[in-house]
Amino acid sequence: MQPVMTVDEVTAFLDREFPQIHDGGRVYAVERIAPGEAVVRLSASERHLRPGGTVSGPSMMALADLAAYVVILAHIGPVALAVTTNLAINFLRKPEPGDLIGTCRLLKLGKRLAVTECGIAGEGEIDLVAHATATYSVPPR
Amino acid sequence: MQPVMTVDEVTAFLDREFPQIHDGGRVYAVERIAPGEAVVRLSASERHLRPGGTVSGPSMMALADLAAYVVILAHIGPVALAVTTNLAINFLRKPEPGDLIGTCRLLKLGKRLAVTECGIAGEGEIDLVAHATATYSVPPR
Amino acid sequence: MQPVMTVDEVTAFLDREFPQIHDGGRVYAVERIAPGEAVVRLSASERHLRPGGTVSGPSMMALADLAAYVVILAHIGPVALAVTTNLAINFLRKPEPGDLIGTCRLLKLGKRLAVTECGIAGEGEIDLVAHATATYSVPPR
Amino acid sequence: MQPVMTVDEVTAFLDREFPQIHDGGRVYAVERIAPGEAVVRLSASERHLRPGGTVSGPSMMALADLAAYVVILAHIGPVALAVTTNLAINFLRKPEPGDLIGTCRLLKLGKRLAVTECGIAGEGEIDLVAHATATYSVPPR
Repeated sequence: MQPVMTVDEVTAFLDREFPQIHDGGRVYAVERIAPGEAVVRLSASERHLRPGGTVSGPSMMALADLAAYVVILAHIGPVALAVTTNLAINFLRKPEPGDLIGTCRLLKLGKRLAVTECGIAGEGEIDLVAHATATYSVPPR
Repeated sequence: MQPVMTVDEVTAFLDREFPQIHDGGRVYAVERIAPGEAVVRLSASERHLRPGGTVSGPSMMALADLAAYVVILAHIGPVALAVTTNLAINFLRKPEPGDLIGTCRLLKLGKRLAVTECGIAGEGEIDLVAHATATYSVPPR
Repeated sequence: MQPVMTVDEVTAFLDREFPQIHDGGRVYAVERIAPGEAVVRLSASERHLRPGGTVSGPSMMALADLAAYVVILAHIGPVALAVTTNLAINFLRKPEPGDLIGTCRLLKLGKRLAVTECGIAGEGEIDLVAHATATYSVPPR
Repeated sequence: MQPVMTVDEVTAFLDREFPQIHDGGRVYAVERIAPGEAVVRLSASERHLRPGGTVSGPSMMALADLAAYVVILAHIGPVALAVTTNLAINFLRKPEPGDLIGTCRLLKLGKRLAVTECGIAGEGEIDLVAHATATYSVPPR
């Protein structure tokens, strides 16, 4: 599966179509796009934290959802119409304070549905703090 | 299953323990607590919206997670230590602009795990815009 | 949502299209079809049991999947082509020995996807032993 | 994570504790145990098939559940008490007729919960036909 958009193209598309994700400060950054894979960073700000300075569950869910969207977008091209139909996440460990990296892989890129798997970990960490799967409904191509 | 906390007690507890959820403005309100059930409102602000003025998926995931926490808290008492272990959500319909109401029901309140089911709908609407299940690990009681 | 097939019509369709589900003896019975809802019984035989005589997890997953198929089929008519795309189940309590009743409700019946919610309980029991959600891809209608 | 049981030990344990899984003929075989991983084969018989000779969804769910149990068992030792609390599966492609291989990985082996991820594919195939995550409640150790 070859991507059809670059990191810069996806970033520009997100900025144009979904400026809200940067509301309150730019915290998400698309870091890497490769065949069947995308990597998105969450630079956690105050509003993503819980007592103890660790990233909240909803922030990890949002990261997984965005990373899934990015890997799909990068492989089908700039269509705003892909929508999440299902997201399931397991929280595995309490993250350390600091950025989180979401690495998302395409399990299926079908005519109507795209299914992705995302691992979330602290920077440079091997153990995942969360693991998610997300399904998107994609426009007919 | 009888609740052991009132709406005001749960609200005060959340304000004290999780002020971050009100970062950027108070948008969540615990509206009702009943045996085995809790109702939480999301008064969507700009940062919860997507193009077209509808509430974003991550905002609905955050609402489901909070509503699940509220129904558990209301039945086990004020313990900050309950943590989400799993959340699965199906997005059913594009919500209309406006507030969303999350109604969460306890499916199980066990010694170690609590399992909840949440329906999310627009105010006064019957059709759900999203349906979630969430599992929390609860401290031994 | 009005069903378009009766219990007998769905039963006859399943017998014709999916005889395998009765392999090793007829254990599933469609008991009720109502607007947006279907009820399916599992009369557990030896091969569905675990030590202690309780129904196995996989048997409950199969019941949830079948009940979801039944409620969809009953509302879209006899099309063999509906296929499960996602199933998520929470096991809540160890079931007592005996039959299990799966009650499945349509959360959404869309053009491409149908989403269902299923509660599984022992006969006459209120507390669920398992709760599942299932998504089916349905043929364009 | 080092396994503490061999393929033969796990197989013998399953035969002793869960003879029912071999009811109607021996179809599951533990093929490999490695650090954090287990591989289980489903040699599909008639009762696992759907029209067209492909393995049914419930058979894939049962394979994922068993493979998850095997990888956990292999790493915590022979305790029959581990029970599934949650299983979520995405069906990605219609499998070809023939055996299916379930490869299951430990995402977390905690004091109370073990979380696993399972990919299911035809023998020698790269594309997954299904992907599952399963959570087990494990006895205190």
